[in-house]
Amino acid sequence: MRFAGLVEYDGTGFSGWARQPGERTVEEELSRALRTVLRQPVRLTAAGRTDAGVHASGQVVSFEAKTGLSPEAIAYKASAVLPEDVALRRCVRAPVGFDARRDAVSRSYEYRILNAPVRSPLLRHRAVHVGWRPDFGLLREAAALVLGAHDFRAFTPAKSHHVHFERLVSESRWERRGDLLVYRITADAFLYNMVRALVGTMLEVARGRRDLASFEKLLKGAHRAEGGPTAPARGLTLVRVRYAVEEVEEMLWTPGF
Amino acid sequence: MRFAGLVEYDGTGFSGWARQPGERTVEEELSRALRTVLRQPVRLTAAGRTDAGVHASGQVVSFEAKTGLSPEAIAYKASAVLPEDVALRRCVRAPVGFDARRDAVSRSYEYRILNAPVRSPLLRHRAVHVGWRPDFGLLREAAALVLGAHDFRAFTPAKSHHVHFERLVSESRWERRGDLLVYRITADAFLYNMVRALVGTMLEVARGRRDLASFEKLLKGAHRAEGGPTAPARGLTLVRVRYAVEEVEEMLWTPGF
Repeated sequence: MRFAGLVEYDGTGFSGWARQPGERTVEEELSRALRTVLRQPVRLTAAGRTDAGVHASGQVVSFEAKTGLSPEAIAYKASAVLPEDVALRRCVRAPVGFDARRDAVSRSYEYRILNAPVRSPLLRHRAVHVGWRPDFGLLREAAALVLGAHDFRAFTPAKSHHVHFERLVSESRWERRGDLLVYRITADAFLYNMVRALVGTMLEVARGRRDLASFEKLLKGAHRAEGGPTAPARGLTLVRVRYAVEEVEEMLWTPGF
Repeated sequence: MRFAGLVEYDGTGFSGWARQPGERTVEEELSRALRTVLRQPVRLTAAGRTDAGVHASGQVVSFEAKTGLSPEAIAYKASAVLPEDVALRRCVRAPVGFDARRDAVSRSYEYRILNAPVRSPLLRHRAVHVGWRPDFGLLREAAALVLGAHDFRAFTPAKSHHVHFERLVSESRWERRGDLLVYRITADAFLYNMVRALVGTMLEVARGRRDLASFEKLLKGAHRAEGGPTAPARGLTLVRVRYAVEEVEEMLWTPGF
Protein backbone atom coordinates (compact mmCIF):
# COMPACT_ATOMS: atom_id res chain seq x y z
CA MET A 1 0.00 0.00 0.00
CA ARG A 2 1.17 3.50 -0.85
CA PHE A 3 0.92 6.39 1.60
CA ALA A 4 1.48 10.14 1.49
CA GLY A 5 2.26 12.09 4.65
CA LEU A 6 2.31 15.74 5.66
CA VAL A 7 5.33 16.43 7.86
CA GLU A 8 5.96 19.47 10.07
CA TYR A 9 9.24 20.22 11.82
CA ASP A 10 11.15 22.90 13.64
CA GLY A 11 14.47 22.77 11.80
CA THR A 12 16.44 24.36 14.66
CA GLY A 13 17.70 21.06 16.05
CA PHE A 14 18.12 19.17 12.76
CA SER A 15 20.94 18.85 10.23
CA GLY A 16 18.27 19.08 7.53
CA TRP A 17 15.99 16.50 5.97
CA ALA A 18 18.37 14.03 4.36
CA ARG A 19 19.96 11.22 6.34
CA GLN A 20 23.68 11.70 7.02
CA PRO A 21 25.81 9.45 9.19
CA GLY A 22 26.34 10.87 12.66
CA GLU A 23 23.85 13.72 12.20
CA ARG A 24 20.35 14.21 13.59
CA THR A 25 18.06 14.46 10.55
CA VAL A 26 14.30 14.53 10.02
CA GLU A 27 14.45 11.59 7.62
CA GLU A 28 16.22 9.49 10.24
CA GLU A 29 13.73 10.35 13.00
CA LEU A 30 10.66 9.80 10.84
CA SER A 31 11.94 6.51 9.36
CA ARG A 32 12.64 5.23 12.86
CA ALA A 33 9.19 6.24 14.13
CA LEU A 34 7.43 4.61 11.18
CA ARG A 35 9.50 1.45 11.57
CA THR A 36 8.36 1.28 15.20
CA VAL A 37 4.70 1.87 14.38
CA LEU A 38 4.53 -0.28 11.23
CA ARG A 39 7.00 -2.96 12.37
CA GLN A 40 8.83 -2.94 9.06
CA PRO A 41 11.61 -0.88 7.52
CA VAL A 42 10.21 2.18 5.70
CA ARG A 43 11.96 4.07 2.91
CA LEU A 44 10.87 7.67 2.68
CA THR A 45 10.84 9.97 -0.34
CA ALA A 46 10.43 13.68 0.46
CA ALA A 47 9.25 16.51 -1.78
CA GLY A 48 11.98 18.89 -0.60
CA ARG A 49 15.37 18.05 0.85
CA THR A 50 15.53 21.01 3.24
CA ASP A 51 18.93 22.20 4.56
CA ALA A 52 20.10 22.28 8.16
CA GLY A 53 18.04 24.70 10.24
CA VAL A 54 15.25 25.10 7.67
CA HIS A 55 11.70 24.50 8.92
CA ALA A 56 8.71 22.84 7.27
CA SER A 57 5.00 23.21 7.86
CA GLY A 58 4.20 21.50 4.54
CA GLN A 59 6.81 18.85 3.76
CA VAL A 60 5.30 15.86 1.94
CA VAL A 61 6.63 12.31 2.00
CA SER A 62 5.63 9.09 0.30
CA PHE A 63 6.28 5.53 1.44
CA GLU A 64 5.23 1.94 0.89
CA ALA A 65 4.00 -0.28 3.72
CA LYS A 66 1.90 -3.36 4.36
CA THR A 67 -0.31 -2.62 7.32
CA GLY A 68 -3.78 -3.00 8.77
CA LEU A 69 -3.55 0.44 10.36
CA SER A 70 -5.62 3.28 8.95
CA PRO A 71 -3.66 6.30 7.64
CA GLU A 72 -5.07 8.39 10.53
CA ALA A 73 -3.75 5.84 13.02
CA ILE A 74 -0.31 5.92 11.36
CA ALA A 75 -0.17 9.73 11.71
CA TYR A 76 -1.35 9.58 15.28
CA LYS A 77 0.92 6.76 16.40
CA ALA A 78 4.03 8.01 14.59
CA SER A 79 3.57 11.49 16.10
CA ALA A 80 3.26 9.93 19.55
CA VAL A 81 6.72 8.33 19.27
CA LEU A 82 8.42 11.19 17.38
CA PRO A 83 10.41 13.83 19.31
CA GLU A 84 8.61 17.11 19.99
CA ASP A 85 10.24 19.04 17.12
CA VAL A 86 8.76 16.86 14.37
CA ALA A 87 5.31 15.37 13.70
CA LEU A 88 3.44 13.50 10.99
CA ARG A 89 0.52 15.95 10.90
CA ARG A 90 -1.49 13.88 8.41
CA CYS A 91 -1.34 10.64 6.48
CA VAL A 92 -3.47 9.48 3.53
CA ARG A 93 -3.66 6.56 1.11
CA ALA A 94 -1.97 7.44 -2.19
CA PRO A 95 -2.28 5.91 -5.67
CA VAL A 96 0.06 3.07 -6.62
CA GLY A 97 3.50 4.43 -7.43
CA PHE A 98 2.85 7.90 -6.00
CA ASP A 99 6.21 9.62 -5.44
CA ALA A 100 6.27 12.75 -3.27
CA ARG A 101 9.38 14.06 -5.01
CA ARG A 102 8.87 13.14 -8.66
CA ASP A 103 5.14 13.88 -8.71
CA ALA A 104 5.41 17.30 -7.07
CA VAL A 105 4.29 20.03 -9.45
CA SER A 106 5.58 22.91 -7.34
CA ARG A 107 7.04 23.80 -3.95
CA SER A 108 6.41 27.00 -1.96
CA TYR A 109 8.74 28.51 0.62
CA GLU A 110 8.36 31.47 2.94
CA TYR A 111 11.25 33.52 4.28
CA ARG A 112 10.52 35.70 7.31
CA ILE A 113 12.39 38.82 8.37
CA LEU A 114 11.66 40.66 11.60
CA ASN A 115 12.23 44.27 10.64
CA ALA A 116 12.46 46.30 13.85
CA PRO A 117 15.10 48.18 15.84
CA VAL A 118 15.31 45.38 18.45
CA ARG A 119 15.20 41.57 17.96
CA SER A 120 12.13 39.50 18.99
CA PRO A 121 12.63 36.62 21.48
CA LEU A 122 9.32 34.99 20.51
CA LEU A 123 10.27 34.88 16.82
CA ARG A 124 13.95 34.07 17.26
CA HIS A 125 13.78 30.59 15.72
CA ARG A 126 11.42 31.51 12.89
CA ALA A 127 12.59 34.88 11.58
CA VAL A 128 15.84 36.69 10.96
CA HIS A 129 16.24 40.08 12.60
CA VAL A 130 17.10 42.98 10.30
CA GLY A 131 17.67 46.20 12.26
CA TRP A 132 17.96 48.61 9.32
CA ARG A 133 15.05 49.51 7.06
CA PRO A 134 15.06 47.86 3.61
CA ASP A 135 13.43 49.85 0.79
CA PHE A 136 10.23 47.86 0.48
CA GLY A 137 9.50 49.15 -3.04
CA LEU A 138 12.88 47.82 -4.22
CA LEU A 139 12.26 44.48 -2.53
CA ARG A 140 9.01 44.11 -4.43
CA GLU A 141 10.55 45.13 -7.73
CA ALA A 142 13.39 42.66 -7.26
CA ALA A 143 10.93 39.88 -6.39
CA ALA A 144 8.93 40.58 -9.55
CA LEU A 145 12.08 40.09 -11.65
CA VAL A 146 12.43 36.56 -10.25
CA LEU A 147 9.11 35.48 -11.83
CA GLY A 148 9.38 33.23 -14.88
CA ALA A 149 12.13 30.90 -16.10
CA HIS A 150 15.72 31.84 -15.19
CA ASP A 151 19.16 30.34 -14.83
CA PHE A 152 19.72 30.41 -11.07
CA ARG A 153 23.35 29.23 -10.94
CA ALA A 154 24.36 32.51 -9.25
CA PHE A 155 22.18 31.45 -6.31
CA THR A 156 23.58 28.01 -5.51
CA PRO A 157 27.08 26.96 -4.39
CA ALA A 158 29.60 26.92 -7.26
CA LYS A 159 30.48 23.32 -6.48
CA SER A 160 27.03 21.98 -7.14
CA HIS A 161 25.51 18.55 -7.67
CA HIS A 162 22.92 20.14 -9.97
CA VAL A 163 23.20 19.60 -13.72
CA HIS A 164 20.48 21.96 -14.91
CA PHE A 165 20.16 25.42 -13.40
CA GLU A 166 16.95 26.64 -14.97
CA ARG A 167 13.91 26.78 -12.74
CA LEU A 168 10.41 28.12 -13.38
CA VAL A 169 9.14 30.54 -10.73
CA SER A 170 5.36 31.07 -10.62
CA GLU A 171 5.09 33.19 -7.46
CA SER A 172 7.60 35.63 -5.99
CA ARG A 173 6.54 38.47 -3.72
CA TRP A 174 7.21 40.31 -0.50
CA GLU A 175 4.45 41.07 1.97
CA ARG A 176 4.40 43.14 5.13
CA ARG A 177 2.68 41.57 8.16
CA GLY A 178 3.15 43.99 11.07
CA ASP A 179 6.85 43.91 11.99
CA LEU A 180 7.45 41.01 9.59
CA LEU A 181 8.59 41.13 5.98
CA VAL A 182 7.62 37.82 4.39
CA TYR A 183 8.95 36.61 1.06
CA ARG A 184 6.94 33.88 -0.65
CA ILE A 185 8.26 31.97 -3.64
CA THR A 186 6.79 29.07 -5.62
CA ALA A 187 8.70 27.19 -8.31
CA ASP A 188 8.67 23.84 -10.07
CA ALA A 189 11.82 22.98 -8.12
CA PHE A 190 14.68 24.70 -6.29
CA LEU A 191 18.44 24.56 -6.35
CA TYR A 192 20.34 23.99 -3.12
CA ASN A 193 20.36 27.26 -1.07
CA MET A 194 18.46 29.07 -3.82
CA VAL A 195 15.81 30.86 -1.72
CA ARG A 196 18.31 31.97 0.91
CA ALA A 197 20.73 33.32 -1.72
CA LEU A 198 17.88 35.15 -3.48
CA VAL A 199 16.81 36.75 -0.19
CA GLY A 200 20.38 37.76 0.68
CA THR A 201 20.80 39.35 -2.75
CA MET A 202 17.43 41.13 -2.73
CA LEU A 203 18.36 42.63 0.65
CA GLU A 204 21.48 44.08 -0.96
CA VAL A 205 19.25 45.69 -3.57
CA ALA A 206 16.93 47.03 -0.86
CA ARG A 207 19.92 48.55 0.93
CA GLY A 208 21.12 50.37 -2.16
CA ARG A 209 24.26 48.24 -2.48
CA ARG A 210 23.25 46.67 -5.76
CA ASP A 211 20.91 47.99 -8.45
CA LEU A 212 17.94 46.23 -10.01
CA ALA A 213 19.69 45.95 -13.37
CA SER A 214 22.60 44.00 -11.88
CA PHE A 215 20.13 41.77 -10.02
CA GLU A 216 18.27 41.12 -13.27
CA LYS A 217 21.56 40.21 -14.96
CA LEU A 218 22.29 37.61 -12.26
CA LEU A 219 19.08 35.84 -13.25
CA LYS A 220 20.55 35.07 -16.67
CA GLY A 221 23.23 32.87 -15.11
CA ALA A 222 26.40 34.01 -13.36
CA HIS A 223 29.08 32.66 -11.04
CA ARG A 224 28.01 32.27 -7.41
CA ALA A 225 30.56 34.91 -6.41
CA GLU A 226 28.53 37.52 -8.33
CA GLY A 227 25.46 36.90 -6.18
CA GLY A 228 24.78 38.19 -2.66
CA PRO A 229 25.17 36.37 0.65
CA THR A 230 23.09 33.37 1.73
CA ALA A 231 20.52 34.51 4.31
CA PRO A 232 20.35 32.44 7.54
CA ALA A 233 18.43 29.14 7.46
CA ARG A 234 16.16 29.85 10.43
CA GLY A 235 14.05 32.37 8.45
CA LEU A 236 13.05 29.75 5.88
CA THR A 237 10.04 27.41 5.93
CA LEU A 238 8.80 24.93 3.32
CA VAL A 239 5.08 25.69 3.44
CA ARG A 240 3.38 23.90 0.55
CA VAL A 241 3.88 21.23 -2.12
CA ARG A 242 1.40 20.85 -4.96
CA TYR A 243 0.47 17.65 -6.82
CA ALA A 244 -1.50 16.92 -9.93
CA VAL A 245 -2.86 13.82 -8.17
CA GLU A 246 -6.20 15.13 -6.99
CA GLU A 247 -6.80 12.65 -4.17
CA VAL A 248 -3.49 13.49 -2.59
CA GLU A 249 -4.02 17.24 -2.95
CA GLU A 250 -7.45 17.16 -1.41
CA MET A 251 -6.78 14.81 1.42
CA LEU A 252 -3.46 16.26 2.52
CA TRP A 253 -4.58 19.84 2.67
CA THR A 254 -8.16 19.77 3.95
CA PRO A 255 -8.41 21.40 7.39
CA GLY A 256 -7.66 19.44 10.55
CA PHE A 257 -11.01 17.84 11.41
CA MET B 1 14.76 60.27 35.10
CA ARG B 2 11.81 57.96 34.71
CA PHE B 3 11.62 55.34 31.94
CA ALA B 4 9.01 52.94 30.61
CA GLY B 5 10.05 49.82 28.71
CA LEU B 6 8.30 47.27 26.52
CA VAL B 7 9.57 43.77 27.32
CA GLU B 8 9.13 40.61 25.26
CA TYR B 9 10.04 37.14 26.44
CA ASP B 10 9.64 33.47 25.66
CA GLY B 11 8.52 32.17 29.04
CA THR B 12 9.61 28.57 28.34
CA GLY B 13 12.94 28.90 30.15
CA PHE B 14 11.83 31.21 32.96
CA SER B 15 10.33 30.68 36.41
CA GLY B 16 8.09 33.64 35.65
CA TRP B 17 8.61 37.38 36.00
CA ALA B 18 9.22 37.89 39.71
CA ARG B 19 12.65 37.42 41.23
CA GLN B 20 12.97 34.30 43.40
CA PRO B 21 16.18 33.06 44.97
CA GLY B 22 17.78 30.24 42.97
CA GLU B 23 15.38 30.60 40.02
CA ARG B 24 15.93 32.06 36.56
CA THR B 25 13.43 34.92 36.24
CA VAL B 26 12.83 37.70 33.73
CA GLU B 27 13.07 40.38 36.41
CA GLU B 28 16.50 39.08 37.43
CA GLU B 29 17.84 38.99 33.85
CA LEU B 30 16.49 42.40 32.93
CA SER B 31 17.70 44.07 36.15
CA ARG B 32 21.16 42.64 35.57
CA ALA B 33 21.27 43.82 31.94
CA LEU B 34 20.13 47.33 32.88
CA ARG B 35 22.67 47.50 35.70
CA THR B 36 25.40 46.63 33.17
CA VAL B 37 24.23 49.18 30.63
CA LEU B 38 23.37 51.99 33.06
CA ARG B 39 26.13 51.26 35.61
CA GLN B 40 23.78 51.57 38.53
CA PRO B 41 21.38 49.28 40.34
CA VAL B 42 17.92 49.41 38.74
CA ARG B 43 14.66 48.51 40.49
CA LEU B 44 11.98 47.35 38.07
CA THR B 45 8.21 47.52 38.41
CA ALA B 46 6.25 45.36 35.96
CA ALA B 47 2.64 45.67 34.85
CA GLY B 48 1.98 41.93 35.13
CA ARG B 49 3.76 39.38 37.31
CA THR B 50 3.51 36.50 34.86
CA ASP B 51 3.81 32.89 36.12
CA ALA B 52 6.44 30.34 35.19
CA GLY B 53 6.23 29.40 31.50
CA VAL B 54 3.95 32.30 30.53
CA HIS B 55 5.12 34.47 27.60
CA ALA B 56 4.90 38.20 27.02
CA SER B 57 4.93 40.25 23.85
CA GLY B 58 3.63 43.32 25.70
CA GLN B 59 4.98 43.37 29.25
CA VAL B 60 5.61 46.93 30.46
CA VAL B 61 8.14 47.97 33.10
CA SER B 62 9.06 51.26 34.74
CA PHE B 63 12.33 52.26 36.36
CA GLU B 64 14.33 55.24 37.57
CA ALA B 65 17.86 55.94 36.35
CA LYS B 66 20.35 58.79 35.99
CA THR B 67 21.89 58.47 32.56
CA GLY B 68 23.05 60.35 29.51
CA LEU B 69 21.90 57.50 27.26
CA SER B 70 18.83 58.01 25.06
CA PRO B 71 15.91 55.64 25.69
CA GLU B 72 16.55 54.06 22.25
CA ALA B 73 20.16 53.38 23.22
CA ILE B 74 19.04 51.79 26.50
CA ALA B 75 16.70 49.41 24.62
CA TYR B 76 19.36 48.58 22.08
CA LYS B 77 22.20 48.07 24.54
CA ALA B 78 20.16 46.15 27.10
CA SER B 79 18.87 43.79 24.37
CA ALA B 80 22.44 43.22 23.19
CA VAL B 81 23.48 41.90 26.62
CA LEU B 82 20.23 40.06 27.43
CA PRO B 83 19.93 36.32 26.68
CA GLU B 84 18.11 35.41 23.47
CA ASP B 85 14.78 34.58 25.14
CA VAL B 86 14.18 38.11 26.45
CA ALA B 87 14.55 41.60 24.97
CA LEU B 88 13.76 45.20 25.81
CA ARG B 89 11.89 45.89 22.56
CA ARG B 90 11.40 49.56 23.28
CA CYS B 91 12.20 52.19 25.89
CA VAL B 92 10.73 55.70 26.33
CA ARG B 93 10.94 58.62 28.77
CA ALA B 94 8.02 58.55 31.19
CA PRO B 95 6.51 61.26 33.40
CA VAL B 96 7.85 61.69 36.94
CA GLY B 97 6.45 58.98 39.18
CA PHE B 98 5.12 56.80 36.36
CA ASP B 99 4.51 53.30 37.71
CA ALA B 100 3.97 50.48 35.19
CA ARG B 101 1.94 48.48 37.70
CA ARG B 102 -0.12 51.05 39.55
CA ASP B 103 -0.83 53.23 36.50
CA ALA B 104 -1.94 50.36 34.25
CA VAL B 105 -5.61 50.74 33.30
CA SER B 106 -5.96 47.25 31.83
CA ARG B 107 -4.02 44.15 30.83
CA SER B 108 -4.78 41.85 27.87
CA TYR B 109 -3.82 38.21 27.58
CA GLU B 110 -4.16 35.70 24.75
CA TYR B 111 -4.46 31.97 25.26
CA ARG B 112 -3.75 29.81 22.19
CA ILE B 113 -5.03 26.31 21.56
CA LEU B 114 -3.94 24.24 18.58
CA ASN B 115 -7.08 22.29 17.72
CA ALA B 116 -6.10 19.49 15.35
CA PRO B 117 -5.80 15.70 15.42
CA VAL B 118 -1.99 15.86 15.64
CA ARG B 119 0.26 18.29 17.60
CA SER B 120 2.27 21.03 15.86
CA PRO B 121 6.07 21.10 16.36
CA LEU B 122 6.33 24.73 15.21
CA LEU B 123 3.76 25.91 17.75
CA ARG B 124 4.79 23.64 20.61
CA HIS B 125 6.03 26.40 22.91
CA ARG B 126 3.24 28.86 22.14
CA ALA B 127 0.03 26.83 22.00
CA VAL B 128 -1.54 23.91 23.82
CA HIS B 129 -2.60 20.97 21.69
CA VAL B 130 -6.24 19.86 22.06
CA GLY B 131 -6.96 16.76 19.99
CA TRP B 132 -10.75 16.64 20.49
CA ARG B 133 -13.13 19.19 19.05
CA PRO B 134 -14.55 21.74 21.52
CA ASP B 135 -18.02 23.08 20.76
CA PHE B 136 -17.05 26.52 19.50
CA GLY B 137 -20.50 27.99 20.09
CA LEU B 138 -20.33 26.99 23.76
CA LEU B 139 -16.84 28.44 24.09
CA ARG B 140 -18.11 31.78 22.81
CA GLU B 141 -21.16 31.74 25.06
CA ALA B 142 -19.02 30.94 28.09
CA ALA B 143 -16.58 33.75 27.18
CA ALA B 144 -19.46 36.23 26.92
CA LEU B 145 -20.53 35.35 30.47
CA VAL B 146 -17.09 36.40 31.74
CA LEU B 147 -17.65 40.01 30.61
CA GLY B 148 -18.32 42.54 33.36
CA ALA B 149 -17.51 42.55 37.09
CA HIS B 150 -17.33 39.16 38.81
CA ASP B 151 -15.91 37.46 41.85
CA PHE B 152 -13.18 35.24 40.38
CA ARG B 153 -12.13 33.36 43.55
CA ALA B 154 -13.09 30.04 41.90
CA PHE B 155 -10.30 30.70 39.39
CA THR B 156 -7.32 31.28 41.67
CA PRO B 157 -5.64 28.95 44.18
CA ALA B 158 -7.60 28.64 47.43
CA LYS B 159 -4.52 29.64 49.42
CA SER B 160 -4.26 33.06 47.87
CA HIS B 161 -2.37 36.24 48.65
CA HIS B 162 -5.23 38.22 47.13
CA VAL B 163 -7.59 40.13 49.41
CA HIS B 164 -10.20 41.23 46.86
CA PHE B 165 -11.48 38.82 44.22
CA GLU B 166 -13.58 41.08 42.09
CA ARG B 167 -12.15 42.01 38.71
CA LEU B 168 -13.71 43.95 35.83
CA VAL B 169 -13.49 42.22 32.44
CA SER B 170 -13.92 44.45 29.38
CA GLU B 171 -13.07 41.94 26.63
CA SER B 172 -13.55 38.17 26.59
CA ARG B 173 -13.89 36.25 23.35
CA TRP B 174 -12.74 33.22 21.38
CA GLU B 175 -11.57 33.51 17.79
CA ARG B 176 -10.68 30.89 15.22
CA ARG B 177 -7.46 31.49 13.23
CA GLY B 178 -6.96 28.46 11.01
CA ASP B 179 -6.07 25.54 13.31
CA LEU B 180 -5.83 27.86 16.30
CA LEU B 181 -8.50 28.75 18.85
CA VAL B 182 -7.44 32.00 20.49
CA TYR B 183 -8.99 33.36 23.68
CA ARG B 184 -8.48 37.05 24.34
CA ILE B 185 -9.30 38.64 27.66
CA THR B 186 -8.82 42.19 28.93
CA ALA B 187 -9.44 43.21 32.54
CA ASP B 188 -8.45 45.93 34.99
CA ALA B 189 -6.30 43.34 36.74
CA PHE B 190 -6.01 39.57 37.11
CA LEU B 191 -5.81 37.12 39.97
CA TYR B 192 -2.97 34.60 40.06
CA ASN B 193 -3.69 31.78 37.49
CA MET B 194 -7.03 33.39 36.58
CA VAL B 195 -6.81 33.20 32.77
CA ARG B 196 -5.55 29.62 32.77
CA ALA B 197 -8.28 28.48 35.19
CA LEU B 198 -10.95 30.25 33.10
CA VAL B 199 -9.67 28.52 29.94
CA GLY B 200 -9.56 25.11 31.64
CA THR B 201 -13.13 25.58 32.87
CA MET B 202 -14.49 26.88 29.55
CA LEU B 203 -13.00 23.81 27.86
CA GLU B 204 -15.03 21.64 30.25
CA VAL B 205 -18.14 23.51 29.12
CA ALA B 206 -17.16 23.04 25.46
CA ARG B 207 -16.74 19.31 26.05
CA GLY B 208 -20.20 18.98 27.56
CA ARG B 209 -18.84 18.17 31.03
CA ARG B 210 -20.21 21.30 32.64
CA ASP B 211 -23.18 23.43 31.64
CA LEU B 212 -23.25 27.16 31.04
CA ALA B 213 -25.45 27.72 34.10
CA SER B 214 -22.90 26.12 36.41
CA PHE B 215 -20.12 28.15 34.76
CA GLU B 216 -22.10 31.33 35.31
CA LYS B 217 -22.61 30.42 38.96
CA LEU B 218 -18.84 30.07 39.44
CA LEU B 219 -18.48 33.70 38.41
CA LYS B 220 -20.42 34.77 41.52
CA GLY B 221 -17.66 33.41 43.75
CA ALA B 222 -17.03 29.78 44.70
CA HIS B 223 -14.31 27.61 46.17
CA ARG B 224 -11.42 26.83 43.78
CA ALA B 225 -12.38 23.15 43.90
CA GLU B 226 -15.65 23.98 42.11
CA GLY B 227 -13.76 25.40 39.11
CA GLY B 228 -12.11 23.49 36.28
CA PRO B 229 -8.43 22.62 35.83
CA THR B 230 -5.69 25.19 35.21
CA ALA B 231 -4.70 25.09 31.53
CA PRO B 232 -0.92 24.82 30.82
CA ALA B 233 1.18 27.99 31.03
CA ARG B 234 2.75 27.75 27.57
CA GLY B 235 -0.51 28.72 25.81
CA LEU B 236 -0.63 32.08 27.58
CA THR B 237 0.87 35.40 26.47
CA LEU B 238 0.60 38.87 28.03
CA VAL B 239 0.00 40.92 24.89
CA ARG B 240 -0.96 44.46 25.91
CA VAL B 241 -1.07 46.84 28.84
CA ARG B 242 -2.98 50.10 28.61
CA TYR B 243 -2.22 53.40 30.38
CA ALA B 244 -4.07 56.65 30.81
CA VAL B 245 -0.73 58.46 30.42
CA GLU B 246 -0.91 59.45 26.78
CA GLU B 247 2.83 59.89 26.13
CA VAL B 248 3.55 56.40 27.37
CA GLU B 249 0.69 54.87 25.38
CA GLU B 250 1.73 56.52 22.16
CA MET B 251 5.44 55.99 22.37
CA LEU B 252 5.39 52.40 23.58
CA TRP B 253 3.00 51.12 20.97
CA THR B 254 3.83 52.97 17.77
CA PRO B 255 5.22 50.62 15.12
CA GLY B 256 8.92 49.65 15.06
CA PHE B 257 10.49 52.43 13.02
